[in-house]
Amino acid sequence: MSSEEVGIVYVGRKPAINYVMATTLQINRGVKKIILKARGRAISRAVDVAEIARLKYFPGKLKITDIRTGTDELIEEDGSRRDISVIEIELTTV
Amino acid sequence: MSSEEVGIVYVGRKPAINYVMATTLQINRGVKKIILKARGRAISRAVDVAEIARLKYFPGKLKITDIRTGTDELIEEDGSRRDISVIEIELTTV
Repeated sequence: MSSEEVGIVYVGRKPAINYVMATTLQINRGVKKIILKARGRAISRAVDVAEIARLKYFPGKLKITDIRTGTDELIEEDGSRRDISVIEIELTTV
Repeated sequence: MSSEEVGIVYVGRKPAINYVMATTLQINRGVKKIILKARGRAISRAVDVAEIARLKYFPGKLKITDIRTGTDELIEEDGSRRDISVIEIELTTV
């Protein structure tokens, strides 16, 4: 596995620890950069994942190197559209 | 009011639009930089506030210039402690 590979972890409705574990697994396999992606209410959870990974699992070894937000248009089952906020949190090993 | 003043908007449990209005009021009074602060589940709402303000209320005139996260220790009513994630989103008029 190339160390240039970027790992993506999609953060959804499961407990934060599940996504911390997914992040940990990728870093332990040699991935140097992880992007946590979330939208809507899961955004808070993505921040939890970043903070727990940074402080508890890789203290001094993992930094938040970028946080980007944006807006996606979601198409509901009935065809209606609504805007939903998205976040990408970039974690890099140091 | 000095244009160097930084406006702080604490994002809590009310609908996002309330905090968009608080942000709009400060910008219309001449404040050039607003910091949205939120913790826990309100983090998602703070991102909504930033996105709605940026895209709908000040299109092309307001940018997200920094996003910082952190962890605070919260002391519960029973004296127990738990960690809570926090976010600060810096908005600057352009």
